[in-house]
Amino acid sequence: MPRGALSRAIVADQIAIELHRNDDAEALRLNQEEKQALRQYVPGAIADELDRNDEIISEEREVSVLFADIRGYSSISENRKAEEVFEIVNRYTETVSAVVRRHGGSVVEFNGDGMMAVFGAPRELAAKEKAAVEAGRAIVREVGEIEIDEAGPENLTLSVGVGVATGNAFVGNIRAVDRMIWSAIGNTTNRAARLEGLTRPLDVPMVIDDFTQQAAGNACEGFVQRDDVSIKGIRKTVTIHILEE
Amino acid sequence: MPRGALSRAIVADQIAIELHRNDDAEALRLNQEEKQALRQYVPGAIADELDRNDEIISEEREVSVLFADIRGYSSISENRKAEEVFEIVNRYTETVSAVVRRHGGSVVEFNGDGMMAVFGAPRELAAKEKAAVEAGRAIVREVGEIEIDEAGPENLTLSVGVGVATGNAFVGNIRAVDRMIWSAIGNTTNRAARLEGLTRPLDVPMVIDDFTQQAAGNACEGFVQRDDVSIKGIRKTVTIHILEE
Repeated sequence: MPRGALSRAIVADQIAIELHRNDDAEALRLNQEEKQALRQYVPGAIADELDRNDEIISEEREVSVLFADIRGYSSISENRKAEEVFEIVNRYTETVSAVVRRHGGSVVEFNGDGMMAVFGAPRELAAKEKAAVEAGRAIVREVGEIEIDEAGPENLTLSVGVGVATGNAFVGNIRAVDRMIWSAIGNTTNRAARLEGLTRPLDVPMVIDDFTQQAAGNACEGFVQRDDVSIKGIRKTVTIHILEE
Repeated sequence: MPRGALSRAIVADQIAIELHRNDDAEALRLNQEEKQALRQYVPGAIADELDRNDEIISEEREVSVLFADIRGYSSISENRKAEEVFEIVNRYTETVSAVVRRHGGSVVEFNGDGMMAVFGAPRELAAKEKAAVEAGRAIVREVGEIEIDEAGPENLTLSVGVGVATGNAFVGNIRAVDRMIWSAIGNTTNRAARLEGLTRPLDVPMVIDDFTQQAAGNACEGFVQRDDVSIKGIRKTVTIHILEE
């Protein structure tokens, strides 16, 4: 091969490589866009763990679980267009998730009017009980400021019920057939949901269990103790602490 | 520059480009791994929509909403280790999500023992009511086959309550502070949740609303009509159809 031909062959190779490189760069750009689109739907705490290249482990862990629920959600929905209800839920969700994040917790699940958050997983959290109680108090206050019906005489602001329980839960990935759902499962979770359910018949904004109260100390100022309370689906009676409005 | 020097310069360039190309290829590989890790946590139907490069639109749409709930979940949790409950929930979730996917629906939300699925969004689905009713019947049958306590005399298999309602819902992304949650919001969703709640006092495995029954036709064989039923949080009485065991 003459010299000139060799140079031309090398240059041709170089161009081919350069084109290939542009393909890779373009593929990388597209891939990053796709990654960002997916990331938007992943719970923040889980996306952060994946960024750190940490594996999401499944294990029994002591956590504080918080449930929050909009009061009178069915009545609110019944009298409004779906789009208005969507807007109300959006404001509620943004408010609650901002409070939970600010206090170091992770919003895990969401079902329309209800929300579950975990304090102490996937990352350890010092003073998780205090963080959960303070988050609960902030949720009651801030959701209570969301105006939903500026014209009408009733339902001026949203109102919420909050339950917090502390204890062991199994935290990890639940397998659905087309995805994984990170959650915390067990008695502690059930207890938090049931305590949230008690806020309605007791007509108080927040109920916490005895474990949470004992560990959270000063954060529980204003809570009143009630002994021997029966909770649906749980045989033993429990001591609870209620926040009076 | 002499010829030989030019060739060497070109070759050096080529090597530099090749190294760069390897950087891009390596970055692409890493990025794809990260994308897959995130994708695992995104509802299958949403990940599929994002793959098609479709935008996830928020709009009012007619859908069939299905709620499923494990019966006696608190009692099951109370007597078992968190890890055992986690395993039970895993088997339940895999079973229900497989049934929903097989019938063209999308599992949206999950809260411990409960699950919500939508038929007819994000993708349109012909005969969504029939698909939802058939999925509900399959969930009752297949969850009823999950053995949870092979040794003991009680609680041999899981049992489930299913509610289905059809009508308009606002489907789209709810904004949390650190992510988006795709869901369907409004009266239809509330009605489906309330109908699921009725399965316990009525002691039947499945309750559907009148809209669903009228559109699903033959799929509703074996359902019995009940008129003027009161549902908590909804003022008007409704006609429902119950599946008798």
